[in-house]
Amino acid sequence: MQKPSIPKGTRDFLPAETAKRNYIFQTIKDVFELFGYVPIETPAMENMSTLLGKYGEEGDKLLFKILNSGDYLERLPKGSLQEGDSNKLAVQLCEKGLRYDLTVPFARFIVQNKNDISFPFKRYQIQPVWRADKPQKGRYREFYQCDADVIGSYSLINEVELLQIIDEVFRRLGMDVTVKLNNRKILAGLSEIIGEKDKLTDITVAIDKLDKIGINKVNDELRNKGIGEQSIKQLQGFIKLNGSNFVKLDNLKVFFKTSDIGLQGVDEAEYIFKYLKTISFKTDVFLDLSLARGLDYYTGSIIEVQADDFEIGSVCGGGRYDDLTGIFGLEGVSGVGISFGADRIYDVLYNLELFPVELSSVTKIMFVNFGSNEEQYCFSLANKLRDKGISTEIYPEPAKLKKQMSYANKKGIEYVALVGENEMKNNKVTLKDMLSGEQEEMKLEGVINRIKNS
Amino acid sequence: MQKPSIPKGTRDFLPAETAKRNYIFQTIKDVFELFGYVPIETPAMENMSTLLGKYGEEGDKLLFKILNSGDYLERLPKGSLQEGDSNKLAVQLCEKGLRYDLTVPFARFIVQNKNDISFPFKRYQIQPVWRADKPQKGRYREFYQCDADVIGSYSLINEVELLQIIDEVFRRLGMDVTVKLNNRKILAGLSEIIGEKDKLTDITVAIDKLDKIGINKVNDELRNKGIGEQSIKQLQGFIKLNGSNFVKLDNLKVFFKTSDIGLQGVDEAEYIFKYLKTISFKTDVFLDLSLARGLDYYTGSIIEVQADDFEIGSVCGGGRYDDLTGIFGLEGVSGVGISFGADRIYDVLYNLELFPVELSSVTKIMFVNFGSNEEQYCFSLANKLRDKGISTEIYPEPAKLKKQMSYANKKGIEYVALVGENEMKNNKVTLKDMLSGEQEEMKLEGVINRIKNS
Repeated sequence: MQKPSIPKGTRDFLPAETAKRNYIFQTIKDVFELFGYVPIETPAMENMSTLLGKYGEEGDKLLFKILNSGDYLERLPKGSLQEGDSNKLAVQLCEKGLRYDLTVPFARFIVQNKNDISFPFKRYQIQPVWRADKPQKGRYREFYQCDADVIGSYSLINEVELLQIIDEVFRRLGMDVTVKLNNRKILAGLSEIIGEKDKLTDITVAIDKLDKIGINKVNDELRNKGIGEQSIKQLQGFIKLNGSNFVKLDNLKVFFKTSDIGLQGVDEAEYIFKYLKTISFKTDVFLDLSLARGLDYYTGSIIEVQADDFEIGSVCGGGRYDDLTGIFGLEGVSGVGISFGADRIYDVLYNLELFPVELSSVTKIMFVNFGSNEEQYCFSLANKLRDKGISTEIYPEPAKLKKQMSYANKKGIEYVALVGENEMKNNKVTLKDMLSGEQEEMKLEGVINRIKNS
Repeated sequence: MQKPSIPKGTRDFLPAETAKRNYIFQTIKDVFELFGYVPIETPAMENMSTLLGKYGEEGDKLLFKILNSGDYLERLPKGSLQEGDSNKLAVQLCEKGLRYDLTVPFARFIVQNKNDISFPFKRYQIQPVWRADKPQKGRYREFYQCDADVIGSYSLINEVELLQIIDEVFRRLGMDVTVKLNNRKILAGLSEIIGEKDKLTDITVAIDKLDKIGINKVNDELRNKGIGEQSIKQLQGFIKLNGSNFVKLDNLKVFFKTSDIGLQGVDEAEYIFKYLKTISFKTDVFLDLSLARGLDYYTGSIIEVQADDFEIGSVCGGGRYDDLTGIFGLEGVSGVGISFGADRIYDVLYNLELFPVELSSVTKIMFVNFGSNEEQYCFSLANKLRDKGISTEIYPEPAKLKKQMSYANKKGIEYVALVGENEMKNNKVTLKDMLSGEQEEMKLEGVINRIKNS
């Protein structure tokens, strides 16, 4: 007999976990909709041609590929089996793959459905993605992404709105976070000012690690990449800029005197921070000049969110990209978006015990089953409660009372109704409050009122 | 430049479709929870060993298989490439596959998590499944199943409850349906009575087609399967039983005089119909003696639901199975469940125009953007509306008014707020009702009241 198991890096979710996860999804969804974002869904499978080459060479390897159906060997090009190259053969064996993120499918979606979309298009999408990463603590092969993007608008008010969404989501979840903001144009300006314009990627990859490895190691890495001492010296001034967001921005204006792109980045950040000042934000938003995040992808604002009270990677991130759909043939469509990491948010809420207690139970009340007469009687009472919108169960068998109570207890059911011969005669219900243990005889209307007001 | 597309048999869902689909899922979910069913989720991928052999030989071929990662060729048994057998090689190339339904993963889930589950376990699960079927109208390679099952209880009150759930779901969706009920034991009794006990499958496969091909062709098929004329004659009496459910049941008692299993099936059906008489059902439930549905699987009640006003296959089906988890090593656990076909329900609601109109819009009100001063002013008004829970947008660019109004119109936004210099001076908003076309100047409180009461 086979002992059942699931693939490495995937998970089963028991009812209590599923309820908690749904609470996160629902909170994010509610806030997305409050700002006028509308939902779309795309298939789990995409054509390999849609996915390949979009996530770098490493990403291509992490794609889950789906074996062609039928007699796929017959359809292979002659000699391809003999070559023995797993990577090369994979593309011939598999026309389809599982989506790796929601961004590339979204770009494909826009181009394919552009005639049915009115721009600017504010969409959200909450679906799982799959990556053949080495599974480890907190990293799964199947996980959910919760994305909101605006496509077809250059206006920075979209960035402001996405920051509001971040603030509102974490306010509702009761989770303290810090938001970091930067701009790719500020980083481009930096590399221009220090005379290393063509080393933009090397520079940002290095300074992105500042928090983790410290300034000396960042400088070592810069030297290794062939950045000159004079440039490194200039860069120190940039990195050390501090003070409030507006003080930093003022200093950057001086630093970027001769860099148009740098000044443009400063202007954009300033516009956003000025707007933020007019709103009552729960969350602090900081200008973080070392924030880079997938630089090759973003062209303007860069956003990253970190939990204050629990050590874990970023719980939300995003930014502006000026040419997302270009790869699929639709040029000049700017977009900006954010993505919430539901699995990490789950870990934070779980560890800090921030989930609402009432999530643990679906059923409000259970009728104990004392036998077939009582069952039939309770069946009609249960239906009356359901008509009032109260989630109700009858224990399906006349099992021992202890077993039935234990079931209710484990399931977190708040009230248990005991209806035996006496209660049936008096047209009453004995209601037991499972938390306090108190029980009381009352009419069904009393039960309804008690539950509705609890 | 590649022209983007998606794999055959899969679909993109635009916002309006997604909203309609979510409405179906939410309705089903609400009713499941009203009866105390709790949600679980399982991974999209299962080990091939979990899936293979569970859906017959044909089903094995329809499984989507996931190519092993890394240098999978290196790990193949020697000589397996040379054999050239696609089916055999597939199992060596792929350790994982996409789930084909929710039932087998659920059986695996129960066995694997049995220590964390309290029985009877009432779970629901709403997730996509994948089948490499030939795509055709109404048949997709990715589609959702919405399942509710009770595991670990033999009580027939579970069947009654599932029928109540069916009634309530379609009542809420405003969709007229007919429910057919049968019992596998009645079919077993039939084959016993007519002396063809070992031809149970052949008999039920044939009479299951009665509605479609008529009695003569059913009889031909029975003859072809080697059923004798005497048996076929007896079977006519069974098939022709009519009258009310209780009349049919009474006649069956006579028919099954000498078949214990037949009588047991009649008892079970009678128990259910008696219970149903005590409830105000919207839906008619009929005893349909020709209903078989995946017979090898079910051991007791069989349920099937059909739409009254639109021709499409069954929109919901289910039944009792006495040994679901046996394949994974857990014996003697009876279960009963139903599965709603969300895609078919969608088609019915869509074609009969039964979707609520309000689903078409998320955003309640949009502020027109007349320029940066007005934008900033409206930004603060928009936030006040959002604080009241009203989904609000500001058009992100000062585009031509016509373009902005067209955007609001296409998105189905109910109200548009026009705030120019005059309105700003008077602290008012010009509110346009997009449906009636009327517009009126009012304070923000007036806007809030109008929207809250609309």
